Amino acid sequence: MARVINFNAGPATLPLSVLEHAQKEFLDFEGTGMSLLEHSHRGATYAKVHEETKSLLRELLDIPDTHEVLFMQGGASAQFALVPMNLRGSGESADYIMTGAWSDKALSEAKITGDAREAGTGKVDGHYIRVPGQSELALDRTAAYVHFTSNNTIMGTQFHDYPDSGEVPLVADMSSDILWRPIDVSKFGLIYAGAQKNLGPAGITVLILRKDLAERIPKTLPKIFRYKTLLDNDSLQNTIPTFPVYMVRNVLRWVREQGGAAAMEKRNRQKAGAIYGMIDENPDFFRCPVEVESRSMMTPVFRLPTEELEKKLIAEAAAAGMVGIKGHRSVGGIRTSIYNATEPADVEKFVELARAFAKKNG
Amino acid sequence: MARVINFNAGPATLPLSVLEHAQKEFLDFEGTGMSLLEHSHRGATYAKVHEETKSLLRELLDIPDTHEVLFMQGGASAQFALVPMNLRGSGESADYIMTGAWSDKALSEAKITGDAREAGTGKVDGHYIRVPGQSELALDRTAAYVHFTSNNTIMGTQFHDYPDSGEVPLVADMSSDILWRPIDVSKFGLIYAGAQKNLGPAGITVLILRKDLAERIPKTLPKIFRYKTLLDNDSLQNTIPTFPVYMVRNVLRWVREQGGAAAMEKRNRQKAGAIYGMIDENPDFFRCPVEVESRSMMTPVFRLPTEELEKKLIAEAAAAGMVGIKGHRSVGGIRTSIYNATEPADVEKFVELARAFAKKNG
Repeated sequence: MARVINFNAGPATLPLSVLEHAQKEFLDFEGTGMSLLEHSHRGATYAKVHEETKSLLRELLDIPDTHEVLFMQGGASAQFALVPMNLRGSGESADYIMTGAWSDKALSEAKITGDAREAGTGKVDGHYIRVPGQSELALDRTAAYVHFTSNNTIMGTQFHDYPDSGEVPLVADMSSDILWRPIDVSKFGLIYAGAQKNLGPAGITVLILRKDLAERIPKTLPKIFRYKTLLDNDSLQNTIPTFPVYMVRNVLRWVREQGGAAAMEKRNRQKAGAIYGMIDENPDFFRCPVEVESRSMMTPVFRLPTEELEKKLIAEAAAAGMVGIKGHRSVGGIRTSIYNATEPADVEKFVELARAFAKKNG
Repeated sequence: MARVINFNAGPATLPLSVLEHAQKEFLDFEGTGMSLLEHSHRGATYAKVHEETKSLLRELLDIPDTHEVLFMQGGASAQFALVPMNLRGSGESADYIMTGAWSDKALSEAKITGDAREAGTGKVDGHYIRVPGQSELALDRTAAYVHFTSNNTIMGTQFHDYPDSGEVPLVADMSSDILWRPIDVSKFGLIYAGAQKNLGPAGITVLILRKDLAERIPKTLPKIFRYKTLLDNDSLQNTIPTFPVYMVRNVLRWVREQGGAAAMEKRNRQKAGAIYGMIDENPDFFRCPVEVESRSMMTPVFRLPTEELEKKLIAEAAAAGMVGIKGHRSVGGIRTSIYNATEPADVEKFVELARAFAKKNG
């Protein structure tokens, strides 16, 4: 088997050792005579997987006792609807910091069920090319929460300093950069993240909730959608997608073996540095549309002089066994998704190819 | 590896050949150089899996063009909330036929967001031991829909004739018996089923929706929860759990190889017949609390003379490599979940063991 170098935006590449481990015990999980997929979500075997996954997340993100790890289904998109339904009381408004397609969607869903407003934007001349700084935010001190998207996969921007929301709970969609580096979880009311970029495969969403916020959930919300229900039932109020959780556990084990969140940051800065270095050293050929201070360490985007050359680069990369570098259909260009699992050596190979391509076509 | 005989209630046993196939291509899906888990949900490779899964379901359940196959997350429990949110208009009521813990939960969630009423019950002296017949239903002709649970895993009951709801759309939670036999889909407004019993692993919910019903969905519902959004986007409005869908495809391929829904019915009647035969032939030792006409072909339940003997049978079965026969914690006793994937030969082995146990302990 020739394993390709996979820059997919999510579902994304997984560590090879994690896949090999899962394959090995796929038929007979830890000598139980059945696949993990066939185990009851209420049995002792899965319970160990569940606990270890939570405990690894707690350890790797240094989650304080004030916060609980919850698992939910539906991805970040379901959270766009569920965050306001859970955390915004009757008559309350919520603040949204706008930095791209995902925050657009989050705000749009929030407006369907109540009041929500823009509290800042990264839009310049109609394009999201940066994230706003603290001084640019117009926060409502009575808001139910302040919501932002920490990394913007389509736009290639990322918050490097998180907003200060004062006493108002801070809510972050970290789907595309959770665990990319150490963070101070105590600053957040809620962090949520679909697993399929930095944590595992598609099919499970991780929530890190400040527990006291579960007490304000409206009783008009169906029980299955209340964070309080998850909190009271250890996320086992109904059948949990056991296999996606198990894969997250395996990825988290791998992160710990690599040295944890600090090691991830070093590794990710090295990879992103290689790509931005290549761009900045060839300003006549490569152009990153994002302001330098807002550049993403997870999903760098850039353009070539023409769309024709972009297509050619995509084709030459594919011929060399590198896939997934086509930019999102809404913006075009090149996007290299280099989440935690992407190997630095593979990024180097792409950078080499792109440098040679620039030399030949520039 | 010694594979156990697994009577788990769900997640449940899967066909061994299905697991072996998935294991074999786990690292390199169809020569693409990556795992199916790493493929984009918007790429051509996953698109083929998605299409084949829908197409197999259409073929095996003979789904008419009036209906569409949709995939959602959250299990049946999410549907308990989403069915009324989608299908019940402002001021409308919905009818629920009560047959156990699952219909209790469905009604309870429906009441949180609007009007819903009991339209019939299988309760006798405080216990759900049967399903009500057509003449026992008191249906509201102005109801938004009539909801029922086709098989009741905890109680061991099953509808063998489906309710006739007239012009009112009929909604069925078929989580624990979808595809157990051929059905007339045209009679239903909506069928929904968590995959983890008859269709695959946990993590995906199948919906079969009469398309015209999507037009009545209230605009006050967040877009991500509207069936109309799924219908308009082929269930790809956001990242779908690709691996659970793929496993469902593999299970459906297996069902077709076995001869389809008709073959499943024959196989399932044979298995359930063996268990009920054993019970009826030993009336002094085994007792099925369910009325004969309402007995489940998927999840037969029965009692022994004492709880001590039940524990002993569970232990002796475990020693013989048979697991998962302990009844639900809310009702006790023995439950043998014998979904499509359970091999008739394995049921025979259990029946042999239980017969010998009765002889020895009766």
